[in-house]
Amino acid sequence: MRYSQLFGKTTKNAPADAESVNAKLLTQGGFVLKQMAGVYNYLPLGLRVLTKIQNIIREEMNTAGAQEILMPALTQEENYDTTGRSNLEILFHLEGAGGSKFVLNQSHEEVVTPLVQTYSFSYRDLPVAVYQIQNKFRNEPRAKSGLLRGREFNMKDLYSFHTSEEDLNTFYEKMQGVYFNVYQRLGLGERVVLAFASGGSFSRYSHEFQALSDVGEDTIFLCKKCNVAVNKEIIDEHNFCPQCNNVDLVPKKAIEVGNIFKLMTRFSEAFGFKYTDAAGKVQPVIMGCYGLGPSRIMGTLVEIFHDDKGIVWPETVAPFKVHLVVLGADVEVAEAAEKLYVELKKKMVEVLFDDREKASAGEKLSDADLIGIPYRILVSKKTLAEKSAELKERTGAAARLVPLSRVAGELS
Amino acid sequence: MRYSQLFGKTTKNAPADAESVNAKLLTQGGFVLKQMAGVYNYLPLGLRVLTKIQNIIREEMNTAGAQEILMPALTQEENYDTTGRSNLEILFHLEGAGGSKFVLNQSHEEVVTPLVQTYSFSYRDLPVAVYQIQNKFRNEPRAKSGLLRGREFNMKDLYSFHTSEEDLNTFYEKMQGVYFNVYQRLGLGERVVLAFASGGSFSRYSHEFQALSDVGEDTIFLCKKCNVAVNKEIIDEHNFCPQCNNVDLVPKKAIEVGNIFKLMTRFSEAFGFKYTDAAGKVQPVIMGCYGLGPSRIMGTLVEIFHDDKGIVWPETVAPFKVHLVVLGADVEVAEAAEKLYVELKKKMVEVLFDDREKASAGEKLSDADLIGIPYRILVSKKTLAEKSAELKERTGAAARLVPLSRVAGELS
Repeated sequence: MRYSQLFGKTTKNAPADAESVNAKLLTQGGFVLKQMAGVYNYLPLGLRVLTKIQNIIREEMNTAGAQEILMPALTQEENYDTTGRSNLEILFHLEGAGGSKFVLNQSHEEVVTPLVQTYSFSYRDLPVAVYQIQNKFRNEPRAKSGLLRGREFNMKDLYSFHTSEEDLNTFYEKMQGVYFNVYQRLGLGERVVLAFASGGSFSRYSHEFQALSDVGEDTIFLCKKCNVAVNKEIIDEHNFCPQCNNVDLVPKKAIEVGNIFKLMTRFSEAFGFKYTDAAGKVQPVIMGCYGLGPSRIMGTLVEIFHDDKGIVWPETVAPFKVHLVVLGADVEVAEAAEKLYVELKKKMVEVLFDDREKASAGEKLSDADLIGIPYRILVSKKTLAEKSAELKERTGAAARLVPLSRVAGELS
Repeated sequence: MRYSQLFGKTTKNAPADAESVNAKLLTQGGFVLKQMAGVYNYLPLGLRVLTKIQNIIREEMNTAGAQEILMPALTQEENYDTTGRSNLEILFHLEGAGGSKFVLNQSHEEVVTPLVQTYSFSYRDLPVAVYQIQNKFRNEPRAKSGLLRGREFNMKDLYSFHTSEEDLNTFYEKMQGVYFNVYQRLGLGERVVLAFASGGSFSRYSHEFQALSDVGEDTIFLCKKCNVAVNKEIIDEHNFCPQCNNVDLVPKKAIEVGNIFKLMTRFSEAFGFKYTDAAGKVQPVIMGCYGLGPSRIMGTLVEIFHDDKGIVWPETVAPFKVHLVVLGADVEVAEAAEKLYVELKKKMVEVLFDDREKASAGEKLSDADLIGIPYRILVSKKTLAEKSAELKERTGAAARLVPLSRVAGELS
């Protein structure tokens, strides 16, 4: 992609009401534009990142044997009456033609339970795990954390249906491993720890995946031995490591990047979703749910991976792998950069080519740092004199010259 | 994918309130499940089709130089006050925390205009064409056509911004060609004709892409010479071929599968979106918009391509290319089918493998016809005796034996 033609521009000015580092840098970098508090437009750069995050999550969910479906946002209010959740504070209510009452789903238990019920009657039809990647709506009174807390936000939500609690437990533990694979691929790696949290009305505990970060909104108490934590909200009732009973837990700030719940029969019972077991007996279906928000992940990555110059994207989710910058107005230099751009594209390297004629060297370099693409290649009169380009990693201090003939090979 | 593990099942019973052929067959085939009138859940089979349609559209929009973005559904009502459209009958209104007034976008002129305005100041920033593939919401009083008319539905909407009417016209004509490429790839090919329709308050005419079909809701008047049509709604004021002035127009039923509008300055003026031209003069921005609904296309394909046994998907959007069916309980037959399944997957052939042990031959064959995958491969004791499988196209009457060793090669 040529930067001169890319829709969306970098801006030096932080948005007046940018309430968080992720909102500030993503807006300045031309990734997103705020529509209103908690609601964002994704520009081409931002959509590329979001899509890469979604695809990593999708691949891991498919590998785990879950099947992708797509449920609507708009739903009859009566489904929430069935579960007694129609007065949830964060639920948006709408009136349809003829006075019919609708809501916008803030989560999809009220849709997925009767949906799976339609196709599952016997123990032979279970277990089933389905997921979607879709936008949720929550009537948040305060949405002030950029992409971290939205009124409209993107979510991967997976629901599993089982014949027994043991089967749920097996799948639930497997999903913990799947989630850690996702965080590894997203570049969050070792920062993410499993935290025990409140189980709500469903079960004793739920589990959160918390990315350690000094700017995190959550406080967790970490066992340094087991790398397992307890969320502050339950530390009074559970002040020891759930794994080794160690009572020496260390408070840490963290950003929640996923959570999983054993729903048990909370929703299946509300909808009367039962199955017939091998002995012909009718039994309640046992459920679990597993959330992971791609837009929240995008905000979290920026909160964690940035410096005073801008964003530092992990390579797996960066909008492009290479930021090719041409400096100066020299025709030969422009031609050499153009040739390199074509060559990189031919080798399937994702490259953003800053071919702007009116931008200064300073502007181009600071924009490259702000946007945060992993590899910067510079072509200038000086590098061309050495038949080379300058290669610098976003995270590395030192740049080095690479012969023009070897650049594309080295990066592909 | 193994059919025994696929979420979603075929059903012989048509849904009681299936108001259209597409709703009936897509539900019976296990592609979708109705949530409420005009709102559908997409099961794995249905989501595969929808995604393929979206990807064809995406590729063609990108090739045309448009850039993909993603705008929200939830938006401040005041944006619609600005354009005087907040009392549109089909607009859903919501109240947010603290009494703030929101709407759900039924189209995105009220979002995209100020968005593009944020980044476009001078003639150098224009033209720009951005699009998204996203869900729209319309408070339809009667949503009775399955996927053809939804309260929540998927839409590709593209908006173009120009410095002059001539530039808009050039792009607008180019997009007509792009749309015909899309229909060609979707299997609608020669059925789609360009129809002149009302331009609303924006301009004299808009243009629709109409797929000829006896079950179409629209009536168009077709010039057999030019293959161009006039929508019934404007036939009184325009009763001749717009291309050759032929007055001998033939009434035809058709399904609208896309429409494009010259918006001119209708929305740019409302938002005060102007640019500075080369001479330094401030000028209004000229806009066009281009709609094409993936979910509506999915419904249309079923309306047009089906027979009394079920759906007949065009190969480009079929959920799988091959429907592999194993008949009988013989171990050798099962093993041969299993081997073929693995071989097909290795050759990257998308295959649905009906490996059900409890289903009869009749059930399997009628399910294959209902689901409508282009190629059916049958492995049975009879075919195995000939070291072969039976290959039949969904549209073809005759089946033929193909040696097992050659099946995967022939289909890859």
